[in-house]
Amino acid sequence: MSIVVLAGGVGGAKFAYGVMRALPNPADLTVIVNVGDDFEHWGLKICPDLDTVCYTLAELENPATGWGRRGESWRVMEAVAALGGPDWFRLGDLDLATHIERTRRLRAGQPLSHIVADFCRRWGVPARVLPVSDQPIPTMVLTDEGEMAFQEYFVRRRWRPRVRGFRFAGSEQARPAPGVLEAIRIARAVLLAPSNPFVSIDPILAVPGIRQAMQGKPVAAVSPIVGGEAVKGPAAKMFRELGVEPSPKAVAGHYRGLVSHFVLDAADASQADAVRQHVPHVLVTDTMMTSPERRQRLAEEVLAWLRDTI
Amino acid sequence: MSIVVLAGGVGGAKFAYGVMRALPNPADLTVIVNVGDDFEHWGLKICPDLDTVCYTLAELENPATGWGRRGESWRVMEAVAALGGPDWFRLGDLDLATHIERTRRLRAGQPLSHIVADFCRRWGVPARVLPVSDQPIPTMVLTDEGEMAFQEYFVRRRWRPRVRGFRFAGSEQARPAPGVLEAIRIARAVLLAPSNPFVSIDPILAVPGIRQAMQGKPVAAVSPIVGGEAVKGPAAKMFRELGVEPSPKAVAGHYRGLVSHFVLDAADASQADAVRQHVPHVLVTDTMMTSPERRQRLAEEVLAWLRDTI
Repeated sequence: MSIVVLAGGVGGAKFAYGVMRALPNPADLTVIVNVGDDFEHWGLKICPDLDTVCYTLAELENPATGWGRRGESWRVMEAVAALGGPDWFRLGDLDLATHIERTRRLRAGQPLSHIVADFCRRWGVPARVLPVSDQPIPTMVLTDEGEMAFQEYFVRRRWRPRVRGFRFAGSEQARPAPGVLEAIRIARAVLLAPSNPFVSIDPILAVPGIRQAMQGKPVAAVSPIVGGEAVKGPAAKMFRELGVEPSPKAVAGHYRGLVSHFVLDAADASQADAVRQHVPHVLVTDTMMTSPERRQRLAEEVLAWLRDTI
Repeated sequence: MSIVVLAGGVGGAKFAYGVMRALPNPADLTVIVNVGDDFEHWGLKICPDLDTVCYTLAELENPATGWGRRGESWRVMEAVAALGGPDWFRLGDLDLATHIERTRRLRAGQPLSHIVADFCRRWGVPARVLPVSDQPIPTMVLTDEGEMAFQEYFVRRRWRPRVRGFRFAGSEQARPAPGVLEAIRIARAVLLAPSNPFVSIDPILAVPGIRQAMQGKPVAAVSPIVGGEAVKGPAAKMFRELGVEPSPKAVAGHYRGLVSHFVLDAADASQADAVRQHVPHVLVTDTMMTSPERRQRLAEEVLAWLRDTI
């Protein structure tokens, strides 16, 4: 069955990898990826979530960090730092090549989605990966220190500022990349990866047409909050700063009206009833994706459960 | 005594290095460098002659090639090639960092000469290195296959097309970089390195004000042609294609009216009288710069000779 996964970075990539492995034909998977994190650095267009998803699906990712490439080296960055250049965003040599060639092609007029498709072929990614849009939709983080660009907040300031909200600049004018709406329309189900709801999934949903295409479709979300904390990144901190106790119930409430199915970790089993206030179908299982096998097992269980309930 | 060297790439860098070592105070040396080879590649501004001169003076250069950096690696270029990107111009990882940081600063509005000065400080270059101009003056090579950009001719086509002439695009409007004219004016002598007369030295001389600043000054040229061939690169081939037998005499004729002193290799000793038709002072010596010691020895001999004859 054809499946769409909406994904941000590391958690999204791991979940998409599990789904790819769980499907009999990996080509039945389309991963629609957040572009809100994309930014310019060293004069290059950098797409952290797209690259993390592609590297992970191609098994080229750095297993220690979850982002960047396996067997990475840092020769260029060290030499740039020796010249006094900015090194607050770590760019490895192999990863840098991706940004150089992508930027070259973008300047030559190729759409991002076209470039990603070609890179995926060359890297041997068996699934389809689509940026949600070919237009930039930079996520702006509204904080108590003012509005800042996402990577400024996320990497440079290490998500220390308190958030008050988010803005997806230009999302009203953005169009879904070719294939995005079609993939959703023909999908048997849409899965929201356990990515950050505010800065990974919401910027995808902000592109006009995406929510509408999902209407009436089975949509399953996996909670990125386990035991009151985010498995990775600032999701729990963001919930708190927005005045909501971080929990699977809070995530389900955030996605209310959009998702029909919700997966929460066994550690939060006691919240299953509370989640059912927002979402009709609830699955409690082990959601920790600490190995390729566990990612695949989680995906297999979610897909089997969807088959049984839709 | 303060000395100016006009230089192109590898030969110019080696000669400038010798002069730097020969002077009691290396800060008395100003190297004015050709920018005609500069071009954009991978979206980056690349200045091959400037970098070769700086790396050589900092003893960071690759001694095997004469260009690029010592202990270089090629991780990025190999990964770019794996994505189908252009790899006809070889960019090492360490060298790439120079282009990335230079391009970033240029886009931020810093003049090239300012950037070069800062890089030289950081690399520990004891002499002063100046691009002849902060404006781009791209050398265009007129060939029997039409006009082509310099690196297209030089690297991509491996200087195979027959040349008919040269054009230094924008040179009429170019201004010497800050310090260039002053350095020439206060110099005891100006030395033309054994660089290619057509595509290394002429583009420097094409910048308005340079020739005038040199008038009446001792100017010594070292022949890049030895035994009828260029020590490196296409100089001899260019002379032939322009209808002139390549020889020290041909080089001296090319520089007639500009140079007062001319240095030719002992291998061409028989041409000394012919060279005197063009230039009053002629020195015959070993000009092969195959080791740092030989570079320094040549420079010491030339400087001593200049002291005796001016």
